[in-house]
Amino acid sequence: MFECRLPKAEVLKKTMDALKDLIKEAVWDVSAQGLSLQSMDSSHVSLVQVTLRTEGFDTFRCDKNIALGVNMDTMQKLMKCASNDDNITLKSEDNGDLLSLIFESPNGEKTSEYEMKLMDLDIEQLGIPDQEYSCTIKMPSGEFQRICRDLSNIGESVNITVVKGGVDFSAKGDIGNAKIHVTESSNVDNEKDAVTVEVNEPVNLTFALRYLNFFTKATPLSGQVSLSISPDVPLVVAYEIEDLGHVKYFLAPKIENEDDE
Amino acid sequence: MFECRLPKAEVLKKTMDALKDLIKEAVWDVSAQGLSLQSMDSSHVSLVQVTLRTEGFDTFRCDKNIALGVNMDTMQKLMKCASNDDNITLKSEDNGDLLSLIFESPNGEKTSEYEMKLMDLDIEQLGIPDQEYSCTIKMPSGEFQRICRDLSNIGESVNITVVKGGVDFSAKGDIGNAKIHVTESSNVDNEKDAVTVEVNEPVNLTFALRYLNFFTKATPLSGQVSLSISPDVPLVVAYEIEDLGHVKYFLAPKIENEDDE
Amino acid sequence: MFECRLPKAEVLKKTMDALKDLIKEAVWDVSAQGLSLQSMDSSHVSLVQVTLRTEGFDTFRCDKNIALGVNMDTMQKLMKCASNDDNITLKSEDNGDLLSLIFESPNGEKTSEYEMKLMDLDIEQLGIPDQEYSCTIKMPSGEFQRICRDLSNIGESVNITVVKGGVDFSAKGDIGNAKIHVTESSNVDNEKDAVTVEVNEPVNLTFALRYLNFFTKATPLSGQVSLSISPDVPLVVAYEIEDLGHVKYFLAPKIENEDDE
Repeated sequence: MFECRLPKAEVLKKTMDALKDLIKEAVWDVSAQGLSLQSMDSSHVSLVQVTLRTEGFDTFRCDKNIALGVNMDTMQKLMKCASNDDNITLKSEDNGDLLSLIFESPNGEKTSEYEMKLMDLDIEQLGIPDQEYSCTIKMPSGEFQRICRDLSNIGESVNITVVKGGVDFSAKGDIGNAKIHVTESSNVDNEKDAVTVEVNEPVNLTFALRYLNFFTKATPLSGQVSLSISPDVPLVVAYEIEDLGHVKYFLAPKIENEDDE
Repeated sequence: MFECRLPKAEVLKKTMDALKDLIKEAVWDVSAQGLSLQSMDSSHVSLVQVTLRTEGFDTFRCDKNIALGVNMDTMQKLMKCASNDDNITLKSEDNGDLLSLIFESPNGEKTSEYEMKLMDLDIEQLGIPDQEYSCTIKMPSGEFQRICRDLSNIGESVNITVVKGGVDFSAKGDIGNAKIHVTESSNVDNEKDAVTVEVNEPVNLTFALRYLNFFTKATPLSGQVSLSISPDVPLVVAYEIEDLGHVKYFLAPKIENEDDE
Repeated sequence: MFECRLPKAEVLKKTMDALKDLIKEAVWDVSAQGLSLQSMDSSHVSLVQVTLRTEGFDTFRCDKNIALGVNMDTMQKLMKCASNDDNITLKSEDNGDLLSLIFESPNGEKTSEYEMKLMDLDIEQLGIPDQEYSCTIKMPSGEFQRICRDLSNIGESVNITVVKGGVDFSAKGDIGNAKIHVTESSNVDNEKDAVTVEVNEPVNLTFALRYLNFFTKATPLSGQVSLSISPDVPLVVAYEIEDLGHVKYFLAPKIENEDDE
């Protein structure tokens, strides 16, 4: 049997919002370590990986590793039936074909139990190798979302150039071109607003804005986003979920001659 | 001649919002007792009944009973031209074919007079018998709206089961099933937030969510909604309009074998 | 070379919002006096004229008069990439085919440079003669916007009747008719909320609401709007942009027999 409980449904609602436009079906892997999910997006271009660690839950019981195949749209729809302040319990029998989602209002007067049918999904997990990156940028997640959205007005790709002290995001298109320069914060009073740029080796790589715009649906999960970049390996766009885990997105760079639309 | 005046247009705007999705045309009956309206919805499944009592108006004059046939969409559109704080006067000649709606801004600098063409409608009024009910539930109107909306994600019908101390709202569908339990409030500091459950006889009945979702358009009118339920007679969903009257909706239960879509 | 700088992008964003639904392409004329733009709307019924004076800018340099042909939609899209608080610099070479828009965030950590392709537009400027008007009305811009929107529920035209002390806006249509009377303010504590009515000669003229509704897109630019009206000449609907200039719209009255749809 699997059963876990979180004090606020909000965090799981936001996690589902961060995934549902990108993936249609996925498997939640449940183990003593917690919940995790890994999936290619439906067009098989990018990869998303979610970890929710046991320690972050109020209670967590997992008698046996299980795989919960879910329709993401359905699960997000049901999660929206929870109020942000409700506490939430997820529950499933070891060989069951149902996942129970139980929401309790803070005053205890309302309890909602949703039973969602599970799916038999056969999804192969890829190993994601640990990796050193040439550059790591941390910046306000809302700022990154804004940059991706603004540059989408100009073109389909963003070129990211990282040098010591700052990052350039640039795009070209029929109506003109754009370059947005973000400077590393000199002194950081508020960690959430800070921009930090770690550079082992400068990089200059190009990515499809379409996918970055999907990734930034995770913005409500965290005040900061981190971008880990190296040539020839996928970019990692990571959002930490406080005390609980993270949502990470992986996207390979465009190769040069794809670059110029 | 008929003429009445309310200090705030808001209440009449909200009343029109509560009706216009359900009924296309209706007759306002004007008498010394006030304004009232009764109409089947356009698909002839549910019934709505509105009473606005003379005592709730600033001034009310009705020389002779009249029937004002209106297109609800038009009247709602014109009511939206009033600001919430405007005072409002309704006026009609005894044999006229116009209803005047006059809105005055609080500072007196703006007066708007709309003349709406009346319609010749031949609508038979049904008597609604007074009735004892097996169960009466009072609960926050926003909570009831939320429950109806959330369960619409699951299925087309809600089963309402009332027992001493609480109510279960449940639904089934292709993606799974749901049961929302609402417990009677133990101590009630704030009357608007209270849940009270009066049970003469437990009930277990099923209703079409499509219509309940129409009824909850009246939510802004009142902090509380009351549900009066008995087997074999229509459910009554009632919203009190403070000091002025009420909007009541009637909907027959589904019979058993309609239940399982 | 042309280069100018404003402390807040907001004012230019709102100016573009006020224009983009009415005109598709236009020429910004740059001279030592500032920026100006004049254009018929795309259906050649109304005229819009914008002036942004040199004195209102932080810095303004114009070595030689130039004409910047722009696609309004593109320019508005790029302006939306600025935050309201960003300072903004516009820049263009004398014989260039690009306009640079540079936005700097208040904390200096983000600089965005957009280069927009210019267009070769051949637009003849009409002289707008200075003119005495029979009546001039000043009123809260939000109130005027509301009146135009509300009367659009009734008909396609508004009749404006100005007499000493007040204005009537009226409309007729299939569903009925409407008359909104606005009274001159007696004492004016807050200039923005005041209604003033100057009458040399009473007027009674009719205008197409479709265009007035386009004009009121400028409402966010200014708390007050002024309407200058005379028989046989276009109505002027003017919004002052504080310290910087104005947006003015011109619309000819309808002649009598067009009046009755």
